Amino acid sequence: MSLIAAVRSDASSDVLTSLRAVCDSQGLDDLSAHLADLADLVKWDMSALEEGIRGLPVGESVVHKSAHHLLEIAGKRLRPMCVVLASRLGTGLDDETREFGVAVELVHCATLLHDDVIDAGERRRGAPAARTLYGNAASIFAGDWLLVDALRRVRAAEMPDVLVRLLDIIDEMIFAEAIQLENRGKVDARMATYMRVVEGKTAALFRWAMFAGARAGGLDAQSCAALEEYGRHLGVAFQLIDDHLDYAGDGAMIGKAPFTDLREGKMTHPVIVALERDPSLRTALEEIVASAAHEVPESAKTRLLTALNHTGALDATREVALREAAAACQALSALPDSRARDALFTVARATVHRES
Amino acid sequence: MSLIAAVRSDASSDVLTSLRAVCDSQGLDDLSAHLADLADLVKWDMSALEEGIRGLPVGESVVHKSAHHLLEIAGKRLRPMCVVLASRLGTGLDDETREFGVAVELVHCATLLHDDVIDAGERRRGAPAARTLYGNAASIFAGDWLLVDALRRVRAAEMPDVLVRLLDIIDEMIFAEAIQLENRGKVDARMATYMRVVEGKTAALFRWAMFAGARAGGLDAQSCAALEEYGRHLGVAFQLIDDHLDYAGDGAMIGKAPFTDLREGKMTHPVIVALERDPSLRTALEEIVASAAHEVPESAKTRLLTALNHTGALDATREVALREAAAACQALSALPDSRARDALFTVARATVHRES
Repeated sequence: MSLIAAVRSDASSDVLTSLRAVCDSQGLDDLSAHLADLADLVKWDMSALEEGIRGLPVGESVVHKSAHHLLEIAGKRLRPMCVVLASRLGTGLDDETREFGVAVELVHCATLLHDDVIDAGERRRGAPAARTLYGNAASIFAGDWLLVDALRRVRAAEMPDVLVRLLDIIDEMIFAEAIQLENRGKVDARMATYMRVVEGKTAALFRWAMFAGARAGGLDAQSCAALEEYGRHLGVAFQLIDDHLDYAGDGAMIGKAPFTDLREGKMTHPVIVALERDPSLRTALEEIVASAAHEVPESAKTRLLTALNHTGALDATREVALREAAAACQALSALPDSRARDALFTVARATVHRES
Repeated sequence: MSLIAAVRSDASSDVLTSLRAVCDSQGLDDLSAHLADLADLVKWDMSALEEGIRGLPVGESVVHKSAHHLLEIAGKRLRPMCVVLASRLGTGLDDETREFGVAVELVHCATLLHDDVIDAGERRRGAPAARTLYGNAASIFAGDWLLVDALRRVRAAEMPDVLVRLLDIIDEMIFAEAIQLENRGKVDARMATYMRVVEGKTAALFRWAMFAGARAGGLDAQSCAALEEYGRHLGVAFQLIDDHLDYAGDGAMIGKAPFTDLREGKMTHPVIVALERDPSLRTALEEIVASAAHEVPESAKTRLLTALNHTGALDATREVALREAAAACQALSALPDSRARDALFTVARATVHRES
């Protein structure tokens, strides 16, 4: 392993290290120990994947630069980790199927690049969004590029069903984004709509990560289906915590300004719950949505934060996330006990404890 | 054939009819007769393709609406026609490979949707651009959707090399667009850069159309290569005429306002030639580029149009287009004589005579 690879693998395992620190601070010693084992289990695969992700062609074009800007800020790489762990319930990844792990991160980054253009996002993963450095057009093309590159990798592995599934999943993601777009700024959003968006926008790609990994590992159809089900619940839990952190998290840690979702007109789980429980919150919400890119009025902010806490909405979101994480683990109950299955339990538990 | 299909096939053959009218008005009786034969040859295939293109899922989403808005304005469908004709040099299309003809139009429309967002285009194919009706975000997602849908269709035909080639071609298209983007507004554009952009942005997809059709028709590798070469030259000729029409065409017929290219900062063939021959033109060009979305100063317009004519730049562009069309025909010289090959000669000749 080159020095660069060593540095990169450190960056990647840092995510697990910081999760462990959270667990330690919360007295979750058991989870912390499991995270250490997880880190050890995936270390080499994740290092190879990180090489693959950052090894995308480099060029002078703003399209290359936009894509690399995003790819080189270490994300959580949770989707690639799902590919790795699912595969390890079987035979693990080989050189061809390892590309599934790269591809899932590229598809994810492609959606981030396009989303930031659509939402006029300023920051991403704690750094300026690529579009603020290289322009919207470059981010649109960079998203197109990453998508095509991901598809080329998946096709090259010559497992047609894995490619077909990915194309179907991208389709699902696009239409979930479309629903979100059409409900933007509508304060009276319904929970059913929110859940449909989450299933398509976030959970779908986790589902594919698990399916692709399972197929790479040579698992049977029943096990593949169980792992997909895990991916779906994990994805929902992950998104709920994301939504929770937008109100309860530390802006510096989550890498974007708080209240971003609502300023972009997105009604997320805690806000929908709070409004259900306290309809008089509507005025403050409308004020925040209307503020868009401008400074959110302090009074409205305070009103919302108070309501999110007093109505128990933030707790409710965490509870649903915990239930989803439990459902994810439940989906694996028919699979034989193994270190990889244990690691998937750990991922589900850790997902709801993350603070960034 | 249903009544709707009949109406649609009329709409499609109208393009050939209007080309024939142009030929008749220019006294090109021979070409006009060949166009009549071409129309007869492709009638049923083009009608089926039109059904396929417009038969894309309909939905309530703005993504569906944006895509259908563009798809339902009859374009020239020249790329699908290339697929049909290439296939007819062999065994023709079957139900699976007919999807190649739909796919090539979907990929083309995907790039138009994204381009209109990037260029803030107001009109397309003589109608308001989809983004002006449903917003930029919907057009970005609609482009993503059409791209994914096209790839699904091509994959389903189970000719892996055709899918691989399409992914490679989309990659080429993206980076050609990127070069164009980075040279935007640079009045001192070089002809070599312009040609690179045209090869990737336009000719690449024509190349794929010919390759896909040839493979569908069961042609051997040598014939496939010859047809690809035809596609490349046809694509360059097509783009040169497009660029020519931006200055010499009738705005109402070409479906967008004249001078659009230059106002978007794009230096095209005739302008590059004119500037080479008359460097004092630079000031007027800079004025037009600077005007962007505003009214172009009449004096600069007149100055440019005079230079385009007096330096012989417009004629030069047409001459290069004619040479490219001839090179396209030359590429087919080793193929046996057939009605389909004759039709491809006709397409190449007609491409440089079009007025819209």
